[in-house]
Amino acid sequence: MTIEVTFPDGRKKSFRKGISGAELAKEIGFRRALAVKVNDGLKDLSTGIDTDCSVKFLRYEEQEGREVFWHTSDHILAQAISRLYPAAKLTIGPNWENGFFYDIDMPPLKEDDLEKIEQEMGKIVSANLKVERVVMDHNKALELFRDNPYKVEVIKESTDKEVSAYKQGEFIDLCRGPHLPETGLVKAFKLTKLSGAYWKGDQSRQQLQRIYGVSFPEKSMLENYLHIQAEAEKRDHRVLGKKLELFMFHEWSPGSPIILPKGTIIYNELMAFLRQEYARRGYNEVITPQLFNKALWELSGHWQHYRENMFLLHVDNEDFSLKPMNCPSHILIFKSRTRSYRELPLRIADFCYLHRNELKGVLGGMTRVRKFSQDDAHIFLADSQVQDEISRLLDFFRHIYVEIFRLDFKVKLSTKPDKAMGAAERWQEAEAALADALRKNGLEFELKPGEGAFYGPKIDIDLRDSLGRDWQLCTIQLDFQMPERMGAEYEGADGKKHAPVMIHRALIGTFERFLGVLTEHFAGKFPLWLSPEQVRILTVADRFNDYAEKVCKEYAARGIRASVDTRAESINYKVREAQMDYVNYILVVGEREVKDNTVTVRTRDNKVIGAVGGDEFAARLAEEISSRRIV
Amino acid sequence: MTIEVTFPDGRKKSFRKGISGAELAKEIGFRRALAVKVNDGLKDLSTGIDTDCSVKFLRYEEQEGREVFWHTSDHILAQAISRLYPAAKLTIGPNWENGFFYDIDMPPLKEDDLEKIEQEMGKIVSANLKVERVVMDHNKALELFRDNPYKVEVIKESTDKEVSAYKQGEFIDLCRGPHLPETGLVKAFKLTKLSGAYWKGDQSRQQLQRIYGVSFPEKSMLENYLHIQAEAEKRDHRVLGKKLELFMFHEWSPGSPIILPKGTIIYNELMAFLRQEYARRGYNEVITPQLFNKALWELSGHWQHYRENMFLLHVDNEDFSLKPMNCPSHILIFKSRTRSYRELPLRIADFCYLHRNELKGVLGGMTRVRKFSQDDAHIFLADSQVQDEISRLLDFFRHIYVEIFRLDFKVKLSTKPDKAMGAAERWQEAEAALADALRKNGLEFELKPGEGAFYGPKIDIDLRDSLGRDWQLCTIQLDFQMPERMGAEYEGADGKKHAPVMIHRALIGTFERFLGVLTEHFAGKFPLWLSPEQVRILTVADRFNDYAEKVCKEYAARGIRASVDTRAESINYKVREAQMDYVNYILVVGEREVKDNTVTVRTRDNKVIGAVGGDEFAARLAEEISSRRIV
Repeated sequence: MTIEVTFPDGRKKSFRKGISGAELAKEIGFRRALAVKVNDGLKDLSTGIDTDCSVKFLRYEEQEGREVFWHTSDHILAQAISRLYPAAKLTIGPNWENGFFYDIDMPPLKEDDLEKIEQEMGKIVSANLKVERVVMDHNKALELFRDNPYKVEVIKESTDKEVSAYKQGEFIDLCRGPHLPETGLVKAFKLTKLSGAYWKGDQSRQQLQRIYGVSFPEKSMLENYLHIQAEAEKRDHRVLGKKLELFMFHEWSPGSPIILPKGTIIYNELMAFLRQEYARRGYNEVITPQLFNKALWELSGHWQHYRENMFLLHVDNEDFSLKPMNCPSHILIFKSRTRSYRELPLRIADFCYLHRNELKGVLGGMTRVRKFSQDDAHIFLADSQVQDEISRLLDFFRHIYVEIFRLDFKVKLSTKPDKAMGAAERWQEAEAALADALRKNGLEFELKPGEGAFYGPKIDIDLRDSLGRDWQLCTIQLDFQMPERMGAEYEGADGKKHAPVMIHRALIGTFERFLGVLTEHFAGKFPLWLSPEQVRILTVADRFNDYAEKVCKEYAARGIRASVDTRAESINYKVREAQMDYVNYILVVGEREVKDNTVTVRTRDNKVIGAVGGDEFAARLAEEISSRRIV
Repeated sequence: MTIEVTFPDGRKKSFRKGISGAELAKEIGFRRALAVKVNDGLKDLSTGIDTDCSVKFLRYEEQEGREVFWHTSDHILAQAISRLYPAAKLTIGPNWENGFFYDIDMPPLKEDDLEKIEQEMGKIVSANLKVERVVMDHNKALELFRDNPYKVEVIKESTDKEVSAYKQGEFIDLCRGPHLPETGLVKAFKLTKLSGAYWKGDQSRQQLQRIYGVSFPEKSMLENYLHIQAEAEKRDHRVLGKKLELFMFHEWSPGSPIILPKGTIIYNELMAFLRQEYARRGYNEVITPQLFNKALWELSGHWQHYRENMFLLHVDNEDFSLKPMNCPSHILIFKSRTRSYRELPLRIADFCYLHRNELKGVLGGMTRVRKFSQDDAHIFLADSQVQDEISRLLDFFRHIYVEIFRLDFKVKLSTKPDKAMGAAERWQEAEAALADALRKNGLEFELKPGEGAFYGPKIDIDLRDSLGRDWQLCTIQLDFQMPERMGAEYEGADGKKHAPVMIHRALIGTFERFLGVLTEHFAGKFPLWLSPEQVRILTVADRFNDYAEKVCKEYAARGIRASVDTRAESINYKVREAQMDYVNYILVVGEREVKDNTVTVRTRDNKVIGAVGGDEFAARLAEEISSRRIV
């Protein structure tokens, strides 16, 4: 008897009935398979295949493959715990985004204990135990796990006809699976963190010990992971922000960073850059109030749908709120006089602060804040202008992300959700316009069907930083609803009144977040144009101080942020300190430099540029700054 | 019998006893005297002088002289009312800042009625009635004014031994005086406004008709006054702000102006100018939160003394406030790490918004607002650095007010008040340091003894605008208290901890107010560097549009705000419109300009500059802009 198996590339082949996934992989020469998908059902490799089907093998590179891998790793952890702490009661052990964890009812562990557990796990891996699926009825399962009230609770709650468990050596644990065929595949692992947890997340129930871990099929992958983790820790913007004095936080204003002088330089340079682009690209900046009467938010709908995120207060005995968004006030500006179609697209930009009342518990560094500025703009336009304007926006986006910052990114297009408002046809046209604009700009995108806002489709772009982490920053959203709802209209070429479409868009997004992300991306070594201290001039001895001051003045006159270090310290000490402060260019002056009217230059990364004419180098830096080039 | 009279210049002279002020003035040839000050007591010119004394004659040019003049003018108004409206009951008629008013119990008047009253006043002036002082006891006065319950109330409340009244023709009115000798001196007057009032300002008492007036000793002075009033009305920033689309107001955010695109350009240019100066002058800009926990305000003392001016709200179930001032948060920054004397003076600048809960009734335009930004900075320094730092501040002030804006101003130095805190010696040293710094910078100043803040002496500088009106904008305040109160300290050269002195200072003051004042000062015709639209290029016919666009691009590339008007309107129409929009330079392009590669330039004031090479003129404007020259 044979069955016909269809592979992902469409090829079909016959095999004997009952062939296992592992045998099948071997026959077709597929290596490093961890599990198999049979007709969309995830199975152990040992599962026998009895009918015609489509088959896909999973590797660690796929999310589903990783999840199988982590599941088995989790059982290895649980087995080690059972051996070392026989009284410990296992509860559940799911995956998380980047690995696995297990919640265990046992006395609290210390960080030191993790090494011992890892050693025991190592033994289980080395023994290369076979992992077997065991299926039983509820009664048998209850009998088997009778000493563990958590497993008993899980079994009793199960509505499946049968219960599955997985066995490796002396250890057996409840699990839906699938699992790796043997423990030896977990070539590298690490327990990363301990934390507390509650049974079923319920604070009134038993407190548990949670143990986190990561695991990989190759030792080099773990090394790479640990390297990135260590790098991310070093780059943590909260750490670097403190070290480089970019920003600080204070308990008396939670969620509102205090941007220190050096951080403010970066903030202002970013804003100046965007303002220059705004002037080129026809944006009109405005400055708007922080406080608005409830009447505005009722008209916009925020009072009804967003109030719990707003900071409320009483003014003149009426309800007011700190604005969480700029859009309604921009519509007030649009409505402040008659508008003609000739004014469209009308682009209103606003850097004013926004306040959103995030829960105190979720605030963190610069990436989760309550008070922030955005490079926010609202564009009022006619339907017919949408595609062209989106193209302009993508060009603007590309200028910032690609030409200036050389960042990687990921584009998503979200389309009409079920609860959408507005005519289906208008949605289709708009979605087509967005997709066309993306294609014309050569931007690949992932389609997110049904994930648009209720008021219109949108484009979201995530930045991928130098450690491969994604950050949601840029958003471009069409809005067919708010202008009409708030009574905005323009006089068309036909002499009639029309409601404009509105685009909500922020390209770098939140300044605070962007500053935090850039800090990590560049590991604090900002490109010259953003750098708080661009040049430091170091003197070899006191008698060169005047020359150093003269050079510094010349640099300052060109708008270069330069300072002088005339302290009576050794030149090596001064160079090292400047490098630790991430000053882009370090200029040493002594006998020869004064005589030749030069400076001897090296970089913060200790690259020696050598002796150059002071003014020649200043001119070069001024050009590097004004072009905002990353060298 | 003779008496010896001492004059203000120190000269002494003998006169016969009993000589009147008027005779004395005549004898020494003093003209245009309105009243006389005898040993600091203000008297009618008709008063006889019986003893040795010092004497000073008052003219209209002095505030005290003007007040006498307005008093008599007020009686002329009251006399006219009594003739025209016999049933009207006079109440009181004091002076105000720029003239006089009288509150009268009578049916409401209309604007039209004022002319009739002015005519009657004219008759009283022409009749040149003698004004005589009449002194009587309370009973006599109560008898004389028995028909007027308001006067009766005033007499009964008087604690003076006798009551004085002044009589002119058939009219007599209660008054302390002094008065002009005769009504004919009031050569020019005008009733300016009607409004309602309550007897003694008490809403529960009788409603009265208030009539305002101004008066002058010369007709030309009234003409000048009326001219300035009309000019001020035309320049009213609320009117110009709307016409030029600089800013707008909305009932949903009282006291928080919405700065429109053109106003934002000016706002941002001012800020960019200050930032450039900050870089040159060693200031460190920061960005600070809007919301702070009550704990901060308790520590700074604002919670105890300023709470009624703060916008309060609940955050995380605690009391918070929108910040009304930056100083406490700058002290948090100062305290965020150990500070050394080597870092002083530490200059922390902050443009972040401030909110102060002014009463809704007193809000007005850009000059009385609830939400605003200041060019605020706090300077932390050692006592020994005060004079030098004040000198730097005065240099900075002079750069802004004199070199850049060419403004007139008035300097005031306010010294130790009675309720001052801190050692007397420290105050004296600080006051001397401020006065010395002012003198060294060649700045004349008026001393305001006892008008300093309780925490230190201060310098206030009022701007005098092109219509001669004063605006308080600039303030430089020493503070010996707050840093110590809030626990700020630095490590001195002696290795010990010291509390720094703090200087609170704002040079242009509030941006919103400064923008309003500048709008009126320049009557909307902003100097080139601040101007929202610097250049407009007008085409004579369609076939020159490409050339116009090319020129516009060249100007824009130099950072000049230029636009093109290619509408099919007549060139005269387009020029006129550009002039009405106060565009600084209007460039016309046609056949000849395209052929010669030139533009033909005229100004918004219709000054013809003529044909110039396009790029040559652009270069000239770029220089005019970057130097911020007012031409």
